[in-house]
Amino acid sequence: MPTERIYNFSSGPSMLPLPVLEQAAAEMLNYRGSGMSVMEMSHRGKDYLEIFEETKADLKRMLKVPDTHEIVFMQGGATLQFSAVPLNLIGITGKADYAVTGNFSTLAMEEAGKYGEANTACSSADRNHTYIPEQSGIKLSPDASYFYYCSNNTIYGTEWKYIPETEDIPLVCDMSSNILSAPVDVSRYGVIFAGVQKNMAPAGMAVVIIDKDLAGNELAITPKLLSYELMIDSDSMNNTPPCYTIYMLGLMLKWLDGQGGVEGMRKNKAEKSAILYNTLDESDFFNGCAQVTARSGMNVTFKTKSEELDDRFAKEAAAAGLENLKGHRSVGGLRASIYNAMPIEGVQKLAAFMRDFEMKYRQA
Amino acid sequence: MPTERIYNFSSGPSMLPLPVLEQAAAEMLNYRGSGMSVMEMSHRGKDYLEIFEETKADLKRMLKVPDTHEIVFMQGGATLQFSAVPLNLIGITGKADYAVTGNFSTLAMEEAGKYGEANTACSSADRNHTYIPEQSGIKLSPDASYFYYCSNNTIYGTEWKYIPETEDIPLVCDMSSNILSAPVDVSRYGVIFAGVQKNMAPAGMAVVIIDKDLAGNELAITPKLLSYELMIDSDSMNNTPPCYTIYMLGLMLKWLDGQGGVEGMRKNKAEKSAILYNTLDESDFFNGCAQVTARSGMNVTFKTKSEELDDRFAKEAAAAGLENLKGHRSVGGLRASIYNAMPIEGVQKLAAFMRDFEMKYRQA
Repeated sequence: MPTERIYNFSSGPSMLPLPVLEQAAAEMLNYRGSGMSVMEMSHRGKDYLEIFEETKADLKRMLKVPDTHEIVFMQGGATLQFSAVPLNLIGITGKADYAVTGNFSTLAMEEAGKYGEANTACSSADRNHTYIPEQSGIKLSPDASYFYYCSNNTIYGTEWKYIPETEDIPLVCDMSSNILSAPVDVSRYGVIFAGVQKNMAPAGMAVVIIDKDLAGNELAITPKLLSYELMIDSDSMNNTPPCYTIYMLGLMLKWLDGQGGVEGMRKNKAEKSAILYNTLDESDFFNGCAQVTARSGMNVTFKTKSEELDDRFAKEAAAAGLENLKGHRSVGGLRASIYNAMPIEGVQKLAAFMRDFEMKYRQA
Repeated sequence: MPTERIYNFSSGPSMLPLPVLEQAAAEMLNYRGSGMSVMEMSHRGKDYLEIFEETKADLKRMLKVPDTHEIVFMQGGATLQFSAVPLNLIGITGKADYAVTGNFSTLAMEEAGKYGEANTACSSADRNHTYIPEQSGIKLSPDASYFYYCSNNTIYGTEWKYIPETEDIPLVCDMSSNILSAPVDVSRYGVIFAGVQKNMAPAGMAVVIIDKDLAGNELAITPKLLSYELMIDSDSMNNTPPCYTIYMLGLMLKWLDGQGGVEGMRKNKAEKSAILYNTLDESDFFNGCAQVTARSGMNVTFKTKSEELDDRFAKEAAAAGLENLKGHRSVGGLRASIYNAMPIEGVQKLAAFMRDFEMKYRQA
C-alpha cells in the first residue's frame, strides 16, 4: 500500500493542489474561529456569505468577467447544462447550431433535440474526432438561437485553438476541461459553463457565466432550478447551494492566483503538454491520437502498437505511482490528463517512464 | 473570536458530528493509503467505487429499503426534486394530489402545475401551517398519479405523525428534514427524497428512494439527468456524481450506526425535543408556535412576547455559543433545529439558557 501521494492522471475528478487539501483539512473542524466547519454553516449566515462573495469576486477577476455577465453556481455538473442551455435559449428562435467534436457535444446536441431543432454546424465524426473543424467548415444557420461547442474534448484529446466567428449568434461553450487554463475573452460568449471536477474543485457543481441579456428566454417547462434568470436573480441561492464545493473552489482560486493566475496556467499548460508531445514525437513506439494542430493542452491521448501493451503500460505506470492512464472506455489507448493541479514533476516522471517503457518493450 | 466549536441550531446546512469531521480531516490528503484525497478520485476507480457501494449498502440496511426500491443520489437538493417528481410521475394520469403543510410543499405543488394538474388534497394554510391535517381531512382524487406530502415542516416546526392512507395511489414524500431520525416503512412509498444538508451530509445532493415499478413514466421533455429510470439504470453514475458528498454521507452513516441507527436516533430525537418542549410548557414567557399534537421532533419553533425580545434572545444565545436560533425570515420568532448531529448537551444548554433568559426578562 503506497503511503505517498500519487500522480493522478485521471480525466476527472482529478488532482487538487496539496496546499489546497492541507488548508481544507486544517479548517475542517473550526473555520477561522467560527466554531464550525464550512460544511455546517448556514448558506445565509455571515461567515458563509463572506466565503461565497470572495470566491465569486476572485473568479470574476481572474477570468476578467465583464459586468454584462453574471457568474452562477449550479448543481448537476456539465451534463445538466446540456439540458439547461436549450431550455433557457433555444426558445429564442426554436433552433440552435452545434459543433460536434466529441462525445460530450454529441450528448449536448441530442439533449437540445428534445426542446427544438438542433442542427449540426460541423462535425469531426468522419475521422473519429481526431481533429477540430476549421472556421471555413462551419455551416451556420442564420436564425440559430445560439452556436454551441465544447472547447476541449477530454476523450479524444483535442482542443479548439480559435473562437468560432458566428456574427450575431450567441456563442455557448462547454469549457469543463480547459477553463482557467488560459485567458479567455468572456465578452465574446453568451454562455460559458464548466463542470468543476477537472480544473477547479471536487465534483458536484458547474460554474455558469451568463450574458445577462440572454436570461429570461427560458421555455415554460424549464425546471425552476435550471432557470438562468432565477439563478442570476437569487445570486445562486434560490435553494441551498453546494456550499463546501464553492469553498473548495475558493481555495483553488487562491492557489491559482499564487501561480500567476490564468496567464501562469497558460504557461504551465504549454510547458507540461510540450514535455509529453515531444516525448511522443521523438518516439517510434508511441503514437499520438489527435491531429498535431488540434492537440489538447489538457488531455494527451496516445497509443502503443497493441491493446495488450497499452494495458501493460497503464498497469506498470500505476505501480510506479502514475495512476489512471487508461484511455476512455469508448476509445481505448492511453490518456494523460494534466489539468491545472498536476505538478510538472508528475509530467516529467511520466515522460521518463514512457522512455523507459519504450526501451523495455521496443522489441516486444 | 470563539476558539471552541459552537452549538449550531441552523435549519440547514447544520451540524455534523465531531468524529465525522475529524475523520474527514484525517483522510483528506491520502485516503487509506490510496495516495489521493477522496475529492481527487475517479468516480469509476476501484477506491471510489468501494466507498460508493458501502455507503449505498449502509443506507439500504439502515432504512431497511426493500429490493423493490432503488436508492439514487441526485444533485440539486430537494428543490430540483420538486421538478423531478412531476416530470417522472405526473404523466401517469396527468394529475397529482398535494398536501400543503408549509413553504416547501407549496413550492413543490407550484412546480407540479407546470407539468400537469396539481390538486390541493389538504392544506394547513388556514392556520398558518401550525398543524397537520388529519386523515379524515384529506380529499383524494381517485385518478391521481401520486399523493405528495412533506413529512416535517422545517419553517413551521410541524411533523406528520402518521403515514397518509391513499389506497393504490403512490405516496411521494419529501423527508429532507427528518430522514434517518426514526424508522420508516419504505415499502409504503413510491418515492422518498431528501436534501442531505440537514440530517445526513453537507449540502449539494438529494437521496432519492424509488419504487422501481414507477420508473420509466417520465415526460418526453424531462432533462436527461432528472430521469429516475436513467439514474437507476446508471446506478447514479450517468455523469460524475457529487463524490465527496457521498463519502461524507458514508462517514455519517457509520457514526449513526454507532449511535444505534435509526432506532437510536428515534430515542435521541424524543429525548432532545422533550427537553425543549417541556421548557416551553413550563414557561409563561415562551410560547410554542406549533399545535401540540403536530410538534416536530426536529425543529422546535417558539416565540417570546415581542419581536424585540426574540432578537435579543437570538443575539444573547449566540454570544453564549448557541447559534442560528432566529426563526425563518418568513415567520419570524425563534427556532431550534435539533437534527441527528446535535448533541444532547447542546439542547440542555439551550434549555438552561431559556430559563435564565426568562428570569432575566420576565418583567421586561
